[in-house]
Amino acid sequence: MSEFFDNVPFVKFEGVDSTNPFAFKHYDAKKVLLGKTMEEHLRMAACYWHNFCWQGSDVFGANTFERPWYKADSEMAAAKMKADAAFEFFTKLGISYYSFHDVDVSPEGKSIKEYISNFSAMVDVLQEKQETTGMKLLWGTANAFSNPRYMSGAASNPNPEIFAYAATQVFHAMNATHALKGQNYVLWGGREGYETLLNTDLKRERAQLGRFMQMVVEHKYKIGFTGTLLIEPKPAEPTKHQYDYDTATVYGFLKEFGLEKEIKVNIEANHATLAGHSFHHEIATACSLGLLGSVDANQGDAQLGWDTDQYPTSVEEYTLITYEILKAGGFQSGGYMFDTKLRRQSTNLEDLFHGHIGAMDTLALSLERAVKMIEGEALSKYVDQRYAKWNDELGTGILAGKQSLASLAAHVTDNDLNPQPVSGQQEMLENIVNGYIYR
Amino acid sequence: MSEFFDNVPFVKFEGVDSTNPFAFKHYDAKKVLLGKTMEEHLRMAACYWHNFCWQGSDVFGANTFERPWYKADSEMAAAKMKADAAFEFFTKLGISYYSFHDVDVSPEGKSIKEYISNFSAMVDVLQEKQETTGMKLLWGTANAFSNPRYMSGAASNPNPEIFAYAATQVFHAMNATHALKGQNYVLWGGREGYETLLNTDLKRERAQLGRFMQMVVEHKYKIGFTGTLLIEPKPAEPTKHQYDYDTATVYGFLKEFGLEKEIKVNIEANHATLAGHSFHHEIATACSLGLLGSVDANQGDAQLGWDTDQYPTSVEEYTLITYEILKAGGFQSGGYMFDTKLRRQSTNLEDLFHGHIGAMDTLALSLERAVKMIEGEALSKYVDQRYAKWNDELGTGILAGKQSLASLAAHVTDNDLNPQPVSGQQEMLENIVNGYIYR
Amino acid sequence: MSEFFDNVPFVKFEGVDSTNPFAFKHYDAKKVLLGKTMEEHLRMAACYWHNFCWQGSDVFGANTFERPWYKADSEMAAAKMKADAAFEFFTKLGISYYSFHDVDVSPEGKSIKEYISNFSAMVDVLQEKQETTGMKLLWGTANAFSNPRYMSGAASNPNPEIFAYAATQVFHAMNATHALKGQNYVLWGGREGYETLLNTDLKRERAQLGRFMQMVVEHKYKIGFTGTLLIEPKPAEPTKHQYDYDTATVYGFLKEFGLEKEIKVNIEANHATLAGHSFHHEIATACSLGLLGSVDANQGDAQLGWDTDQYPTSVEEYTLITYEILKAGGFQSGGYMFDTKLRRQSTNLEDLFHGHIGAMDTLALSLERAVKMIEGEALSKYVDQRYAKWNDELGTGILAGKQSLASLAAHVTDNDLNPQPVSGQQEMLENIVNGYIYR
Amino acid sequence: MSEFFDNVPFVKFEGVDSTNPFAFKHYDAKKVLLGKTMEEHLRMAACYWHNFCWQGSDVFGANTFERPWYKADSEMAAAKMKADAAFEFFTKLGISYYSFHDVDVSPEGKSIKEYISNFSAMVDVLQEKQETTGMKLLWGTANAFSNPRYMSGAASNPNPEIFAYAATQVFHAMNATHALKGQNYVLWGGREGYETLLNTDLKRERAQLGRFMQMVVEHKYKIGFTGTLLIEPKPAEPTKHQYDYDTATVYGFLKEFGLEKEIKVNIEANHATLAGHSFHHEIATACSLGLLGSVDANQGDAQLGWDTDQYPTSVEEYTLITYEILKAGGFQSGGYMFDTKLRRQSTNLEDLFHGHIGAMDTLALSLERAVKMIEGEALSKYVDQRYAKWNDELGTGILAGKQSLASLAAHVTDNDLNPQPVSGQQEMLENIVNGYIYR
Repeated sequence: MSEFFDNVPFVKFEGVDSTNPFAFKHYDAKKVLLGKTMEEHLRMAACYWHNFCWQGSDVFGANTFERPWYKADSEMAAAKMKADAAFEFFTKLGISYYSFHDVDVSPEGKSIKEYISNFSAMVDVLQEKQETTGMKLLWGTANAFSNPRYMSGAASNPNPEIFAYAATQVFHAMNATHALKGQNYVLWGGREGYETLLNTDLKRERAQLGRFMQMVVEHKYKIGFTGTLLIEPKPAEPTKHQYDYDTATVYGFLKEFGLEKEIKVNIEANHATLAGHSFHHEIATACSLGLLGSVDANQGDAQLGWDTDQYPTSVEEYTLITYEILKAGGFQSGGYMFDTKLRRQSTNLEDLFHGHIGAMDTLALSLERAVKMIEGEALSKYVDQRYAKWNDELGTGILAGKQSLASLAAHVTDNDLNPQPVSGQQEMLENIVNGYIYR
Repeated sequence: MSEFFDNVPFVKFEGVDSTNPFAFKHYDAKKVLLGKTMEEHLRMAACYWHNFCWQGSDVFGANTFERPWYKADSEMAAAKMKADAAFEFFTKLGISYYSFHDVDVSPEGKSIKEYISNFSAMVDVLQEKQETTGMKLLWGTANAFSNPRYMSGAASNPNPEIFAYAATQVFHAMNATHALKGQNYVLWGGREGYETLLNTDLKRERAQLGRFMQMVVEHKYKIGFTGTLLIEPKPAEPTKHQYDYDTATVYGFLKEFGLEKEIKVNIEANHATLAGHSFHHEIATACSLGLLGSVDANQGDAQLGWDTDQYPTSVEEYTLITYEILKAGGFQSGGYMFDTKLRRQSTNLEDLFHGHIGAMDTLALSLERAVKMIEGEALSKYVDQRYAKWNDELGTGILAGKQSLASLAAHVTDNDLNPQPVSGQQEMLENIVNGYIYR
Repeated sequence: MSEFFDNVPFVKFEGVDSTNPFAFKHYDAKKVLLGKTMEEHLRMAACYWHNFCWQGSDVFGANTFERPWYKADSEMAAAKMKADAAFEFFTKLGISYYSFHDVDVSPEGKSIKEYISNFSAMVDVLQEKQETTGMKLLWGTANAFSNPRYMSGAASNPNPEIFAYAATQVFHAMNATHALKGQNYVLWGGREGYETLLNTDLKRERAQLGRFMQMVVEHKYKIGFTGTLLIEPKPAEPTKHQYDYDTATVYGFLKEFGLEKEIKVNIEANHATLAGHSFHHEIATACSLGLLGSVDANQGDAQLGWDTDQYPTSVEEYTLITYEILKAGGFQSGGYMFDTKLRRQSTNLEDLFHGHIGAMDTLALSLERAVKMIEGEALSKYVDQRYAKWNDELGTGILAGKQSLASLAAHVTDNDLNPQPVSGQQEMLENIVNGYIYR
Repeated sequence: MSEFFDNVPFVKFEGVDSTNPFAFKHYDAKKVLLGKTMEEHLRMAACYWHNFCWQGSDVFGANTFERPWYKADSEMAAAKMKADAAFEFFTKLGISYYSFHDVDVSPEGKSIKEYISNFSAMVDVLQEKQETTGMKLLWGTANAFSNPRYMSGAASNPNPEIFAYAATQVFHAMNATHALKGQNYVLWGGREGYETLLNTDLKRERAQLGRFMQMVVEHKYKIGFTGTLLIEPKPAEPTKHQYDYDTATVYGFLKEFGLEKEIKVNIEANHATLAGHSFHHEIATACSLGLLGSVDANQGDAQLGWDTDQYPTSVEEYTLITYEILKAGGFQSGGYMFDTKLRRQSTNLEDLFHGHIGAMDTLALSLERAVKMIEGEALSKYVDQRYAKWNDELGTGILAGKQSLASLAAHVTDNDLNPQPVSGQQEMLENIVNGYIYR
């Protein structure tokens, strides 16, 4: 059956002492923690685009990856071969979910009709692949940024026909995601932003984008899609400024258009850091606003100002991320999707496995550490204690709206209050976290 | 009458050919453009803190400024001497407005009662100074970040008594601003943020901050203050992360607490760039959201990751800023406030004048250029043309809610649409702008 | 004769009041300043690669530029058509110089022999074009970074055969530059760096690079090339870290391999800012080390962490750059080369003109301002005064090696010295500069 | 005997399962690895300045630390109390080394004579403390940046008398370091740089700095100091640009003044990242240039653009750092010095212990992991293999100077070479490293 990855065995859990580079040291899918298996907690997904579409080019260099599935007699034949490769890879890797853009899986064609016909045929292929392999779709999306048509935006384009064209793609991609029982539908506005303010009407483009998102919500209900709608924030790249800059920005946008109950966020680690935040910040912010949907699990390069989409390797970072997610109740429809790509110099087919195995082990080990933190109330007891006074009369009264500036001023003055600060104990808390990670 | 700045004459407009370093080359206060004087357009203000309180220290070095007004027999005597120096400076400079924090003008004292009594006495002094000199107050504010009490936040503090203490200061600072006919009241949350997520409850702190802002609005109406309330966004510094990160973040916060009609933003150039945005972006965003209140006119250092608060010198930058503000109708209650400080090595008293004269000339010249851009429809005709198709049936129908994903998909497919992009003409528009600046 | 740019007239100087977008407002080639024409001062060059090879793709999107010269029956036919278009453009624009990489002008072919044969034929074409049009070659270079062969470096490659391949390209590109009377030869090490330290031997790669540069110098003398050799620093992109990080780094490298008298630097504005420096810093540093060779005149985007290669528009920035260069004696063999590209949305052929006209006017106006600064001793009199004490006995003795720590300690202690600092007058100097720019 | 830290016991190694926050989990000073004890490998030092001089202020806020040793009847009495506190702390912590600036340990006084007399007295106190406790001095240094005198530089000052004053301090600080058997002497040029290029003569300042460093070397030999001289690179802060920007820059400077055999670098993690490098990069670069002297072991905040000097907590980062140092032969005279400060909100005396205990455990565990990597040839076997072809005839011939561009071009062309790249295997190597860290 195997055609593309003959050199690689099915990847199994062998434990921390294994020296087999094609085995998991930490990811033991069926191991139960806090009442759920690792697989159920992590809900890990591989992506179609970086793994099976990107050929290793960068801005200064040509393709370095020679993959057999790029060579076929027709575009549709190549698409099917790519699907064969993708599902062989997913299966051998032992990952549960995958994700795709419309044009990752299906040739765009020369007209909208060809697009529709190709996509329809490939959805059938994917459906069959899912049934055969047991793979599930974490999320689908439409690519409304690569075609030159979208150079000045999709929903925010100065031309309403291009808005309509994007709507058409999203219509079909949502329908396909629904048909394939996708658990979420993602919208990333790579070109929804501006290149220069000199030619841009911000207010108008925001209105366009708001209406687009409302249509997406309306369509979800119309077709009975029960998955979650997700916006993926990113500050820039390719656009100079993207309207879905970060989670806080998306929140304001959703509030303006009455969508804050309908759409959540898909947070990508590397997008968070490009926005000037820590990944931890974006996750914690989304949790605090009730917006956490799913996570694009990757990592950037702290010295590089663009999206490097590297495989996550930091247990130190992902332990805190997973801890936040567990505190917020764990993933519902979302999961950890590897929006990751090989370094351009990692030209071997085997490198695809090395990247994912390392990533999956990183998340599995992070989950183990985070679970212990939850069980040990590692931080929560200190945090609760820190704010304890807000449970007293003064604090509850303030939040209940019973106080005014004047009443508080009287309270402070009459009692000659001189409240003193107490240590935030950051260093001790950092030691506690490291005590869990390096136990 | 002059005691502190004997070496400096009253600064007058002498025109572009003047070689007098203590004259304006461009700022001609009474010159009329678009029906208003330069003074009325720019509404420029000098600040109390950097000019009269900061003594030239930085994190690695001690004070370098030896100013006569720091030396007096008592704190109150020093405060009065400082007021003498400040108003002498404002008057000689020929600037129309000033701004202050409570503790800039008045000694904090050893208790809240001393604070109140000192502040009350100094407000009387300021009132008299204003009457004598004709100076007006652009905005007042309370410093709820320097005292160690606020090390973990003011409104977002884990201790509600510290929240109450901050409320007391804001109560008095708002009352003082009202008494002094201040045109705005500003809230900058320098410590409203977190130093580490390990000890922080984001959701709770946000609720505290939301309630605090509601109280501020309630108090405004209670006392009949008719000025504008302003939040000043900043991403970090001193705090690792500040909740009022940027304009988009503040917008979401205001929407959550129902305050978007009540509070606007005071945008600082150097805060914008620290947040990873261009200053132009923050201004344009605020205008598009109806949130533009006032501007802290300074500039940062593109190589330094902290707030350098330098005097604005770039006509290239401020022409576009002023153009955006004019397009949005110009300043209402706000203005250009110089939140600027001397370089620590600029130790001469005269340097205070050089800094402000350069800044005021920069804004005056920028205003002249921007007015020409408005008059010449420099950019607007291109922008209107660019979005013209949105005035057609398809575009208006989309925005009016008459279309769905399905109806648009049908429209595109049935007509086999293949809309093509057109040039954004960025380079040509940049040339047009330079044509106005360097005419 | 014109085939590609029929819509555009020959660009002429029409002066500041011209409203013709295809005219120069400031660049008057034959105008004499400080004894040289503008053309002789600025030595401006257009590039082959961005203008005639790049088709508008970015990492997230396909080509947006449809240019007639990409469509021909064979690669060599396309190369010749491209040369026609390029020289038509250069001529209509009225620029004096151009620059190219080997594979910009000539198809790489399928083997080294094809490469040589194609390149040789195209050098003949270029030679004829130069003669016909009077265009001159500012510099040539070899592209040793785009071919997958170079993914892990050229001179610093782990495989010496790839080193040899790069040497072959440089051999031919130097010979071609020599034949075409190029005034400089540039080496940009886009892949001379590392992607991860985990697989890299820094010391060994440095030795390889050092030997490569020595060979380049040896070859220059062997063929009698009288132009200048230039290294172009860049900190990263495409590589995670590039060995020619910035001017200071290149200086250390040159010193180690005894090349500091043989090779200068080609400084690019956008590379300077990516390295965390101001462009002004890099120019001033190169001048102070005697390393200034040539300049890639462009500008980056302060919010984007990659090389955007935009057209220079800032007279404020380029006035100071040009002032530094004039102070250092002006360009010798180097010049201002526009390593600039259109925004991907600027799809019209005319946009190529808009970009260059704006850039050339920016430099021409900057030159005018800088010349006035030189003539007026705008800054130099203050700088000389500031260091004046170093001309006294103590200062000259220190620099002449006549003092030791012990002798200075005795001097300070015996005389109980307590030297005081004086104002650096930064704000006043900034005003002086603006006085020259906005006169 | 204990007076200041009564609440804290002597810190001991208790192993990974200890729940005692005042015990080491990993640092077992006498444990032997690769033939040396942990203590001998790590050579850890605490600093005087952040721990015992800084009082918790920041740019926006007043002191938050109330320490008993700041309150005494005279400056000299306070200095002695501070020494008592410092050595009590060092001893209880169980750290082997410490470091200081002249004015950390001794009051600056009102004149150079007072400075000398105070410093001399305090050196006697320190000498006695060292004898009593067994503490050793890792390095000494002079503070030539905090006093306003140095606002425009010390050695690079426009006034040679200020140069002489700095020389006086360095003279005494070197002598003191020698007397206290310090193992290194450090020079950090916090103000050796510029604030604006408008008033700066780069070439002249570089010459001043070069001569200063030569004097330092001459003085070392004169007094027979056998420790190592170290320059500590930093890109900026407090100065806009510092001349000792990073290791590569320092290398060029040392080469110019003939000092590359005399002076090494003291690399600080947070300075490395502020310079746009990874900490790993700076360490690997210093090792490859033979310049590694000592390390300031801290960490920055990836979102903040200034020196936060946090306690190191990342075993992931320090394992690779320690691996590089071990590969290079381990520390000679240098060590891991904690140039770390508490967060301003960590106001408890106990927090000083938490910070250091976490840091020391981080380094101890990193050492354990790195030793395993050395023993397992974790990376070296892959690196050696990657460059193996350079040991063949072609590679050795190139490096031996036997080849020219012409000979290599002939070799490639005659053999029609077409060398192909091979995978860099970055992901696999990352997995190998994590296999060592999380074993």
